[in-house]
Amino acid sequence: MKDKLFLMIPGPTPVPETALLAMAKHPIGHRSSEFSAIMKEVYQNLKWLFQTKEDVFVYTASGTGAMEAAIFNLVNPGDKVLSLVIGNFSKRWAEIAAMKGADVEKIDSEWGQASDPAVLKQRLDQDVNKEIKFVTMIHNETSTGVTNDIQALCKIVQEHGAVSIVDGVTSLGAIPVKMDEWGIDVIVSGSQKGFMIPPGLAFLACSKKAWEVYENCKNPSFYFNFGACKKSVAEDTTPYTPNVSLIVALRETLRMMKEEGLENIYNRHADLAMKMRTGLRALGLKLFVEDDRIGSKAITSVYPPDGISVPDIRKTLSKTYDIIAANGQSKLQDKIFRLGHLGFVSERDIITALGSLEATLIKLGYNPKREKTALK
Amino acid sequence: MKDKLFLMIPGPTPVPETALLAMAKHPIGHRSSEFSAIMKEVYQNLKWLFQTKEDVFVYTASGTGAMEAAIFNLVNPGDKVLSLVIGNFSKRWAEIAAMKGADVEKIDSEWGQASDPAVLKQRLDQDVNKEIKFVTMIHNETSTGVTNDIQALCKIVQEHGAVSIVDGVTSLGAIPVKMDEWGIDVIVSGSQKGFMIPPGLAFLACSKKAWEVYENCKNPSFYFNFGACKKSVAEDTTPYTPNVSLIVALRETLRMMKEEGLENIYNRHADLAMKMRTGLRALGLKLFVEDDRIGSKAITSVYPPDGISVPDIRKTLSKTYDIIAANGQSKLQDKIFRLGHLGFVSERDIITALGSLEATLIKLGYNPKREKTALK
Repeated sequence: MKDKLFLMIPGPTPVPETALLAMAKHPIGHRSSEFSAIMKEVYQNLKWLFQTKEDVFVYTASGTGAMEAAIFNLVNPGDKVLSLVIGNFSKRWAEIAAMKGADVEKIDSEWGQASDPAVLKQRLDQDVNKEIKFVTMIHNETSTGVTNDIQALCKIVQEHGAVSIVDGVTSLGAIPVKMDEWGIDVIVSGSQKGFMIPPGLAFLACSKKAWEVYENCKNPSFYFNFGACKKSVAEDTTPYTPNVSLIVALRETLRMMKEEGLENIYNRHADLAMKMRTGLRALGLKLFVEDDRIGSKAITSVYPPDGISVPDIRKTLSKTYDIIAANGQSKLQDKIFRLGHLGFVSERDIITALGSLEATLIKLGYNPKREKTALK
Repeated sequence: MKDKLFLMIPGPTPVPETALLAMAKHPIGHRSSEFSAIMKEVYQNLKWLFQTKEDVFVYTASGTGAMEAAIFNLVNPGDKVLSLVIGNFSKRWAEIAAMKGADVEKIDSEWGQASDPAVLKQRLDQDVNKEIKFVTMIHNETSTGVTNDIQALCKIVQEHGAVSIVDGVTSLGAIPVKMDEWGIDVIVSGSQKGFMIPPGLAFLACSKKAWEVYENCKNPSFYFNFGACKKSVAEDTTPYTPNVSLIVALRETLRMMKEEGLENIYNRHADLAMKMRTGLRALGLKLFVEDDRIGSKAITSVYPPDGISVPDIRKTLSKTYDIIAANGQSKLQDKIFRLGHLGFVSERDIITALGSLEATLIKLGYNPKREKTALK
């Protein structure tokens, strides 16, 4: 039905009306005192969300732009980068680092698994000459629906002395991220996720240790330049023309987030994820990540039942129920489908998704096994 | 007055209601067939606007992002880049090229002047060993309000064999740009200008000659990567999550532009610029660029009358008349003010601006000399 679409993909995610209407306003000049007041509030609230005393840079770009910012401002050609790969997005760090000319070593985990802190520790312990300068990782791997224990991983990196670079694209605003307390050096994110606005802004925060590395980087990025960003944050502005419409919308959603409170946001995501997982199991479906401890709070990956294809499920969900679910990516395409429950999502949405999925499966000839699964 | 603001700065520029309302819609998934159909139309219409058979890449970034894309995908450290500098924005090419490690030589013209094709020809004629690989230039220098004859400049570059790289940020959609016919190798632009939507998208088109240079570039950009973009254009998509809201809005404004027609768009801008210049002169004001042949059709720079300050003029225009004019930049700050007439601007807006400026000057104690200037 026209205009009835409901996104249950891991980004873009649903956007609250307040933010949509803010975007429909005429843009204001980005060098005005009115806009500086908005930037100031946004910068402050981002620090709150990232739980950091460091500046949070705002880029007009998508999340991959902030990933490029991290690599191109820090890594020199020939630098040794260790990449912890657990899926399609964590692999991107390795690709960007290779593009910058880094010497990239990957530790691949099976898709659906988390990075093992013990394996990382073993590798870094071997690196007695401290050749490894950077370790890249992902907090929440959106392609599989797995959450890494970045607190443990970053602690190991910190003890070794390398710089940790974390993809927090689908974790910030959904699950706890304590940048300073956990010793995260660089973390990036994107606007169309927990931030509850459309895609087009990306965020990056870096520690003092990472800043020193930036200062020794040859040929860093100009557009994403850390130095230009830091100077601009101090002046409540941005180095180049920002997407003013999205920033005005972001001010609104950050206010909503502050009103809800960090703990409540995290609890809501944990609760919705558990209800989604419980509901899917009650439908007799097999989760791609069975271990609830590493199953993502932002997205759940599911196998289709035997004899029913992922494209058929997605098509029926879309055509009949106006719900968009995501396909698997790369080697998981048509093997799993993924349901996002990230950002502006309430319990009603989980019920809606589960109910529509059940009706979809019945339509496709499946007889849901109604297991009595105790709600945790 | 709240919500009454009218922008007469050179970007962000006014946005038509159709585009604003498109932005207020819930974002759709960027990997959907619905979005691919939109991208396909947008890509086609951009080719029409750029007057090129080549692909036009769409970046989620501001205009400077597309400038970085051009340099970081083409220039290798040590490459010789000749930069034609006539103001703050044309200077940016030299800064980005230096950041990439290029050997940058600048030809500076006095601010308020255009680049002299004869001077460029002389310099390139001296370069008998063809050491100069790139020549950067600007079409419309927004900081001064000067338009370069890029047709003549690019022809000279083409005869030499170097790659021409052009900033068309405030020229595309305002004055003629014939990419293929004029032999432009690379041209970039940004959405908050002639494209009539808010900031947040940037555009880049490159010739076959530039493409070959890209294929030999070491460590190009990942986020702005030409190869990834070309592959995506062929598939009616983008390499990474685009700003779907702005692209939906851009579809609307490109349709408006096609309906108006290229010649009509160019004639409208030429007509409005001439009426603005005539009106300012009739108020007894001195233009920063007196030569109508190089005076920009997108923006006009004006000296304040003796004894009245630029900040006072801008403040009164803003406070009393809700019109935002731009200050001068860098060494021209508080020396001139700038009035944009670019994109979604009609003759009524010129009358509004001139009338409000006259009232502002009278309020500030100026007695406009009412010259009888024949309207051309």
